[in-house]
Amino acid sequence: MRISELSRETGVPVATIKFYVRERLLPPGTPTGRNQAEYNHGHLRRLGLIRALTIMGQLDLSSVRELLTAIEDETLPLSDLYEVLNQALFPDDPAFSDPDGVRRAENDVDGFIKSLGWQVEHDTSGRAHLIHVLSSLQRLGCDCGVEFFTPYADAAERLAEQELGLVPTEDVGRSDRAAAVVRAVLLDVAMSAIRRMAKAHLLSGDPARREMSATADG
Amino acid sequence: MRISELSRETGVPVATIKFYVRERLLPPGTPTGRNQAEYNHGHLRRLGLIRALTIMGQLDLSSVRELLTAIEDETLPLSDLYEVLNQALFPDDPAFSDPDGVRRAENDVDGFIKSLGWQVEHDTSGRAHLIHVLSSLQRLGCDCGVEFFTPYADAAERLAEQELGLVPTEDVGRSDRAAAVVRAVLLDVAMSAIRRMAKAHLLSGDPARREMSATADG
Repeated sequence: MRISELSRETGVPVATIKFYVRERLLPPGTPTGRNQAEYNHGHLRRLGLIRALTIMGQLDLSSVRELLTAIEDETLPLSDLYEVLNQALFPDDPAFSDPDGVRRAENDVDGFIKSLGWQVEHDTSGRAHLIHVLSSLQRLGCDCGVEFFTPYADAAERLAEQELGLVPTEDVGRSDRAAAVVRAVLLDVAMSAIRRMAKAHLLSGDPARREMSATADG
Repeated sequence: MRISELSRETGVPVATIKFYVRERLLPPGTPTGRNQAEYNHGHLRRLGLIRALTIMGQLDLSSVRELLTAIEDETLPLSDLYEVLNQALFPDDPAFSDPDGVRRAENDVDGFIKSLGWQVEHDTSGRAHLIHVLSSLQRLGCDCGVEFFTPYADAAERLAEQELGLVPTEDVGRSDRAAAVVRAVLLDVAMSAIRRMAKAHLLSGDPARREMSATADG
């Protein structure tokens, strides 16, 4: 197909497609004449992948480029591919202001992971983020220990099983790996969206909570 | 306390604190002399709130300012306050390239919400995002209908109940509202972190999945 058709099919402007080609995110089309090139189904899929990562995943172009490389490197295990994605989505561990609180939270989170029987590498972004969340919650006066997260973990394990069930267990190729990455991004957005709706629903059905803003602590 | 003490307590550099004051995110301290001002516990709390929103929530300053205003406007119901937060976290509904697919997804999502018995406003960002995710998944060839999200919804409702249980049902004041906003941001980060760990754990325990990258589709 021509670039104009590729643009129509995907809803991505021609100028943006050309930009992706210049940035080497998208391979150039096969030249068919002066200023003309032919694009194929692979371009269509790759463009969908780039859009999902940039728009829903809000990733910058250098992260997308890194992820595309990781998707194409089929010697890289899927677990490592997910970790590349995690590093792209959650680039830096924020600095901590309260070393003691963090050390306590670190112990708590490690105990929690152990009690779940989960095998999680020490340097994953998931562990670092949970430690930060727990110590932040406690510093902000939330009366919640790490056991607060038990129902989250139960739900997460069930959802992860369902999600990984979509990945074929053999003959996993480049397109399956790309699909797994996009699904991880999209399902994170979905979970967040569904959680927001659940909260809105609970608030709408509970007059005590709905009205609670009417009182003030001065 | 002096600004240097406020900085030590919070781990926020003095220059950043001054920047927040100039940007009117933080009220100035009470002047106690030439180039000196006294800061109090309210500053400490407000600074923690700003940091949680900017670092964990990755919000820009104008979104933080809008949220602070919404937190302080105690006539605004909590459900509306959450919606201000949602708009800040998920600013724009991405453009759709496939109107038919989106219309189908829209019907599916509305039917899904109805089947859950949830009361959700039509124009919430949660609904728009779920529609986008569903239509994107289907366009990317995922063989998943809206029922794929049922376990997500069950989990989300349980977690929302637990989370809203932390908000007092009466005498809710400014600080409770601020805490509710920060918890919403932090618990979203926590859920995402726990989901990533659950996935890493499942992948680590399953040799078939762990090795599946070794095969290729060419």
